[in-house]
Amino acid sequence: MSDSPAGVVELLGVLAYAELTAFLRLAEDAATLAPSLTDRAALSGLAAAEYAHFVLLRDRLSWLGADPEEAMAPFVSSLDDWHAQTRPGDWLEALVKAYVGTGIAGDFYREAARHVDPETRKLVDEVLAEEVRSEFVVERVRAALAENPGLAGRLALWARRMVGEALSQGHRLAVSRPHLALLLVSASEEGPGGRSTRDAGLDTDLVEIGRLFARLTEEHGKRMAALGLVPGP
Amino acid sequence: MSDSPAGVVELLGVLAYAELTAFLRLAEDAATLAPSLTDRAALSGLAAAEYAHFVLLRDRLSWLGADPEEAMAPFVSSLDDWHAQTRPGDWLEALVKAYVGTGIAGDFYREAARHVDPETRKLVDEVLAEEVRSEFVVERVRAALAENPGLAGRLALWARRMVGEALSQGHRLAVSRPHLALLLVSASEEGPGGRSTRDAGLDTDLVEIGRLFARLTEEHGKRMAALGLVPGP
Repeated sequence: MSDSPAGVVELLGVLAYAELTAFLRLAEDAATLAPSLTDRAALSGLAAAEYAHFVLLRDRLSWLGADPEEAMAPFVSSLDDWHAQTRPGDWLEALVKAYVGTGIAGDFYREAARHVDPETRKLVDEVLAEEVRSEFVVERVRAALAENPGLAGRLALWARRMVGEALSQGHRLAVSRPHLALLLVSASEEGPGGRSTRDAGLDTDLVEIGRLFARLTEEHGKRMAALGLVPGP
Repeated sequence: MSDSPAGVVELLGVLAYAELTAFLRLAEDAATLAPSLTDRAALSGLAAAEYAHFVLLRDRLSWLGADPEEAMAPFVSSLDDWHAQTRPGDWLEALVKAYVGTGIAGDFYREAARHVDPETRKLVDEVLAEEVRSEFVVERVRAALAENPGLAGRLALWARRMVGEALSQGHRLAVSRPHLALLLVSASEEGPGGRSTRDAGLDTDLVEIGRLFARLTEEHGKRMAALGLVPGP
């Protein structure tokens, strides 16, 4: 167990709900936007993988003695809001969302893994081992851009909006869930022991959260380049 | 390989699309109708299992040298129509639909398994081994009926409508896909060799298809009793 069990349960709770809702939203996009059955099946495969991640996280919560429903509940509105703000209008937007979404989630897992107990870290590694599945998206998006380079501007803006909304929700969460915020920034600066909530000022943590988000944004930029969506100057 | 490869590809095609679309519809019902995150996760688990079945069936089609997209295409409108006609209005209807739908699919797999080559039969057995997952539904529906027995009439009618729509689509398919119809009725009456499409009259096959559907309806009745939804006289 970590020395910050409240933070760990919150971390697993937000990740579990993120995976469950990603599963459902990807399935919806597959059902409503895929141009062919093959594409529908491919995006459905990504969705099903998210559900498998959810099960790992939920079972870990139960193992820790937490109620998964209660652990997820505080994060429902933030994640639902993010999805409501980033509802794809067509198949390419759905693909970019799937790639950006699983990418940010993966980076976030990597960051989180640095700050939790070894057992939870093993779980996070299991989830990350699955992440390659979204690579089919790169192929599809690059093929679409090769055929119609004019799409790049719209899709780059779309990706930018998704990241902006994610950071906005993330900042709101960091303020309202100080245990979680501390967990994410503590060990990287202070060594494995971390800090207690008593020692740390909220503002300092928000600065560190800001740095974490800057790293996530940087990784996002690399993914945009991989898709062929290099942001403008 | 079976002596009726066209029928086998059609059988795998209809089952594959049925699983893919069941996955997507169950996910939609989980997202829109579940009263709690625990319930949402439970129905999502049923959905994810359907996706795993789809993968088995799609891979078998590829192994047989068939294009999965082409094999599924002829069945899209029938299955989409069925789902459009049986969109659940609330959580209990969604549960009953999940149970009835996976139940009929399971019986259909069992019937189909009697008429295909041993390799395909092994695959069908794998799919069937997963079917226990829908049992959580029984518990939920019985609990709801214990609390409010007046729900039984509406839910029994709802289940009846779903089966009626399924048989209606099934009959339409049996007429338009004679290879598939022959595959499903041949071996049970004629021994493992089956009949060729040349020998058999379509009307005879429809009679046997009618008997097959009668068996499916009988099994459905047992499931209704298990849910506590005994049909009226």
